[in-house]
Amino acid sequence: MAEPVGVAVVGASGYAARELIQILLRHPGVKIAMATSRQDERLDALHPSLASRIDLACEPFDADRMAERCKFAFLGLPHTASMAIVPSLRERGVKVIDLSADYRLADAQVYEDWYGHAHTDAAGLGEAVYGLPELFRDAIPPAGLIANPGCYTSTSILALAPLVAEDLIDRKSIVIDAKSGVSGAGRSPKLTTHFPECNESLSAYNVGRHRHTPEIDQVLTTVARDGDPVEVIFTPHLIPMDRGIFATIYASPKGPAVEHDLIELYRSFYADSPFVRVVTHLPGTKDSAYTNFCDITVRVVRGRILVLACLDNLIKGASGVAVQNLNLMLGVPETTALL
Amino acid sequence: MAEPVGVAVVGASGYAARELIQILLRHPGVKIAMATSRQDERLDALHPSLASRIDLACEPFDADRMAERCKFAFLGLPHTASMAIVPSLRERGVKVIDLSADYRLADAQVYEDWYGHAHTDAAGLGEAVYGLPELFRDAIPPAGLIANPGCYTSTSILALAPLVAEDLIDRKSIVIDAKSGVSGAGRSPKLTTHFPECNESLSAYNVGRHRHTPEIDQVLTTVARDGDPVEVIFTPHLIPMDRGIFATIYASPKGPAVEHDLIELYRSFYADSPFVRVVTHLPGTKDSAYTNFCDITVRVVRGRILVLACLDNLIKGASGVAVQNLNLMLGVPETTALL
Amino acid sequence: MAEPVGVAVVGASGYAARELIQILLRHPGVKIAMATSRQDERLDALHPSLASRIDLACEPFDADRMAERCKFAFLGLPHTASMAIVPSLRERGVKVIDLSADYRLADAQVYEDWYGHAHTDAAGLGEAVYGLPELFRDAIPPAGLIANPGCYTSTSILALAPLVAEDLIDRKSIVIDAKSGVSGAGRSPKLTTHFPECNESLSAYNVGRHRHTPEIDQVLTTVARDGDPVEVIFTPHLIPMDRGIFATIYASPKGPAVEHDLIELYRSFYADSPFVRVVTHLPGTKDSAYTNFCDITVRVVRGRILVLACLDNLIKGASGVAVQNLNLMLGVPETTALL
Amino acid sequence: MAEPVGVAVVGASGYAARELIQILLRHPGVKIAMATSRQDERLDALHPSLASRIDLACEPFDADRMAERCKFAFLGLPHTASMAIVPSLRERGVKVIDLSADYRLADAQVYEDWYGHAHTDAAGLGEAVYGLPELFRDAIPPAGLIANPGCYTSTSILALAPLVAEDLIDRKSIVIDAKSGVSGAGRSPKLTTHFPECNESLSAYNVGRHRHTPEIDQVLTTVARDGDPVEVIFTPHLIPMDRGIFATIYASPKGPAVEHDLIELYRSFYADSPFVRVVTHLPGTKDSAYTNFCDITVRVVRGRILVLACLDNLIKGASGVAVQNLNLMLGVPETTALL
Repeated sequence: MAEPVGVAVVGASGYAARELIQILLRHPGVKIAMATSRQDERLDALHPSLASRIDLACEPFDADRMAERCKFAFLGLPHTASMAIVPSLRERGVKVIDLSADYRLADAQVYEDWYGHAHTDAAGLGEAVYGLPELFRDAIPPAGLIANPGCYTSTSILALAPLVAEDLIDRKSIVIDAKSGVSGAGRSPKLTTHFPECNESLSAYNVGRHRHTPEIDQVLTTVARDGDPVEVIFTPHLIPMDRGIFATIYASPKGPAVEHDLIELYRSFYADSPFVRVVTHLPGTKDSAYTNFCDITVRVVRGRILVLACLDNLIKGASGVAVQNLNLMLGVPETTALL
Repeated sequence: MAEPVGVAVVGASGYAARELIQILLRHPGVKIAMATSRQDERLDALHPSLASRIDLACEPFDADRMAERCKFAFLGLPHTASMAIVPSLRERGVKVIDLSADYRLADAQVYEDWYGHAHTDAAGLGEAVYGLPELFRDAIPPAGLIANPGCYTSTSILALAPLVAEDLIDRKSIVIDAKSGVSGAGRSPKLTTHFPECNESLSAYNVGRHRHTPEIDQVLTTVARDGDPVEVIFTPHLIPMDRGIFATIYASPKGPAVEHDLIELYRSFYADSPFVRVVTHLPGTKDSAYTNFCDITVRVVRGRILVLACLDNLIKGASGVAVQNLNLMLGVPETTALL
Repeated sequence: MAEPVGVAVVGASGYAARELIQILLRHPGVKIAMATSRQDERLDALHPSLASRIDLACEPFDADRMAERCKFAFLGLPHTASMAIVPSLRERGVKVIDLSADYRLADAQVYEDWYGHAHTDAAGLGEAVYGLPELFRDAIPPAGLIANPGCYTSTSILALAPLVAEDLIDRKSIVIDAKSGVSGAGRSPKLTTHFPECNESLSAYNVGRHRHTPEIDQVLTTVARDGDPVEVIFTPHLIPMDRGIFATIYASPKGPAVEHDLIELYRSFYADSPFVRVVTHLPGTKDSAYTNFCDITVRVVRGRILVLACLDNLIKGASGVAVQNLNLMLGVPETTALL
Repeated sequence: MAEPVGVAVVGASGYAARELIQILLRHPGVKIAMATSRQDERLDALHPSLASRIDLACEPFDADRMAERCKFAFLGLPHTASMAIVPSLRERGVKVIDLSADYRLADAQVYEDWYGHAHTDAAGLGEAVYGLPELFRDAIPPAGLIANPGCYTSTSILALAPLVAEDLIDRKSIVIDAKSGVSGAGRSPKLTTHFPECNESLSAYNVGRHRHTPEIDQVLTTVARDGDPVEVIFTPHLIPMDRGIFATIYASPKGPAVEHDLIELYRSFYADSPFVRVVTHLPGTKDSAYTNFCDITVRVVRGRILVLACLDNLIKGASGVAVQNLNLMLGVPETTALL
């Protein structure tokens, strides 16, 4: 491999950024050349687990300096913060992999409806490619701006794409009962994620109004190809564990459903996707925790199709898929630094 | 209150038995006069938390001695073990509250289909009353044999009964996505409940074949009254927490559904049930942990009705409802020892 | 029992206050007549677990109204906030059980040294009785102001008092390695108690400077009676569990130490203390969780004495002992509402 | 790097073996050529997390076949099982890295005293090198049999070695209060590690008789060089988390102790050890979880020296240090596959 390319981590204080840095430190093709954070600290002060691993202090964001040193920027910012800086990076030729929600929804109005802010970067929206390699592998290498998918979204879409692509299910029948570890809520302390509140407890939240809903609808509708929209019922739950997302998905088949055939369909659909493991046992989130794998299985119960899927929300649901996208853009093997 | 009546705890080594003993120790109307266990030990050796609370050693089961000392026996035995001793107790006039599954299914053939054993006590099956006070409050006081409901079952039935009783939903559309703390799996060590296996993990189990399924079907069909059967899709999940069951339930309404009206329906339905709390916020299992309450709320999402319900599997799902039944049989306030 | 006496819960939003309310709701001799909180809400909005249990809204603090309705006030306030209102309550004849640290240290200078604030209520300091019933049972009934002990403090003192009272150990040799569940850190969200930070992790904190240190020193020096000061090394650790304190204590005996004799000494020392359980097995925090018990055992290892003690930090370490104190002041059995 | 050398994993069903396999799969210099287990299954059936990572079925142990394919064997067996097969491997020239306790104690009598079995392989005992690279880095490359250290042992020894080597502390004053995650107890289900027993609880175990005690004594006495024995008080505790060991160590200095000087001593002592991180903040186990690092800091409190150290029991405490030893024996960088 040639000289490592410089990459930037913007918004380095969060959990996904920490995981991303750990993956990038194993990547032979890149060098973390810049990190930014509102907290003006060394990376190993923000993340003690990085002690002795990287000798770099965060700087304030500066597009010029970033463009000098970096070909790629990973954005680990809250929504609206990403779209405020993406234009300045794209102008300077920096390729962006955005882990926020800002470029995931193709329609600016849908963004405004669900996020409560007008979208301010129409050009970016037009340029952005949805960064789910298993579905859009060919569009990613030439892209300049990647909208990295949401964690619930990746789980749900990977679990449903084969059924929707083959038009096997009623698109209004889909129920996604999703469960997430607490790291999915980010690193800012809140009462709901205060240990004595959420430990030893389970609750649903944002029922009927979680922002990953329109993202799932949009991408699955794209997968369906005929324009007839997918509209899911999506219910997220907070689980007292660090990481992992589990989706239990229920859908009504259009015709008779046979478990074995469905497993074969999934295997064939993901034959070229090294990070999707179609299994026959019932997977647990621990099997894919700390990895970039998504585990999926299918069952038929009383005529209904159940898909059970899980992945690590911080890796396959954020930082890992970001590096998968990077690898595709770099033209190196998709699995580089991810096994 | 008069002289306390003697009660027995049969199968005292399990978790539900331990909770039951703790509740009974607060009950002014009863005295634990006998306890049995395969392990021939003092109760506080089996359960160190009972140290200084009760001075009683377990004995082998003996129906005669039990009948001498006790008017009531709580059975905390595995299925098939209960029906092996219930006849001997009933013959001697001991009233039985059975926490196992042996008398829950009215049809012996259904029992055999799901539990893999022939039922050996037809008389008991005929006598047994299903011990869910919120639905069968009038049948319990005169009963001699109570089939205490399963923990998933109570959660699911309490959550669905108002909708089914009012015939508001399609009975084949019901999906129950249920989540349980690990104490629900009992006290016998197994690999799946070994801490490093299930901690920090979430998985589904017994998909499509959990034994609480026919129990839910049966009781809801009874609630429906017109004989048209309820047939649910029930998916249990193991959650890394000690106790608590949470059910997220999806059903298709027969007509337009209005959230506010449904909440009112539930409030009215449970107006006389002191342990059902119909709430408007999204409840967490922690709110009802270590109590005999079942918390329920309702939402309408994209035309589907969602019911979210939770309770403590060891108390409202086992020992607490057992004492509720006892209270009804004793003619004392239903809440005695349970607040 | 006569007409219940009115009690107030001041600072009702915290965890210890919630536990206190739950205990008081079971207490036949009292009625919660007033609750205050900066959050002007109903108690069951602050604490969803109290739904249907109590119909009371928090009010702003007002000494006159409190004195009208209440004979006792429990203060669940941060330090310095307690001493700001205690004088107004005492003037009006309200007896106070203060769960903060404000009246625990007899010497105002020591308070200032460790808490960084001058003490503003010398009269209160003079009046206050240290509310550890196992050691000061006779001083509590007539008291008007109780300084409820700290949670680490109670654990440590109960574990060491017999050894110190009998002058069996070198008072400079004591090492207290203490472990606490996260509820001990209170209910305000902070990064250190954010679930994904402290879950699945263990760390020490405030090494050499935890504020319970001078409290332990002071009380044990009192127990020693000869004035020769006890000076402990105290190291607290944060444990990924909700509740429970465990202290592993090491001390050098002045003469040969025999395990069996020490157990007997402890049994005799606590013979009249219903909430101290001297056990011979190694206790776990779960055995005393959700109870008012403190479990203690003793070992001799390579000539050193080890005392292992645990209790529930929110109950025996805060709300439960507060009610023990109340019971002594009311002249009702010490165990009322606590079993 | 040349052709990868074949390695065997003997006893592949445990947690340390699983971690070892994951590390070895990243190692460019080795190939897992054989795995054995009493369970005759594929590795990914034993460990679902290995799905799609390795295509290998366990075989019964056979020294000849192992010698044909493998230059190194890692033994993840219970004690006594290792010494039953090591001679057959050494005769055939296979180098052994033994993760059991069988070759850690130099004196066969001490082994018998603590493990209750006579030692049956005197030759192996004579040949074995204690595999803690930070202390015995020069002895490891030429060794044929490595006794991989215990997890508590590594933590304790790394924390104390600088103080003992420099003769700064009273060797009879050392108290090691150690805390371990539950994976340290192995993968066989037991009541004590059944989730509802150990979750949300903390207890001490094997007080005064844990088998890592003589191992710590022996190695630290070696470090001391003058023959005057180290004799520690070692108290292990079970913590409700998956992985991580934390040791809080107390020792009396021979002279005045200055925190800053001690930190410098530690930094200098471990200057050439890439996996020991001497830090100034108080570390948490999570910082080193899933890594091969050991984090250490030092404090002086009331004249006593406190050392706080932590590491991941399955990696730095078992599989990771095993690969460190392998790397030294292969002559490749010590950090290969470990960052």
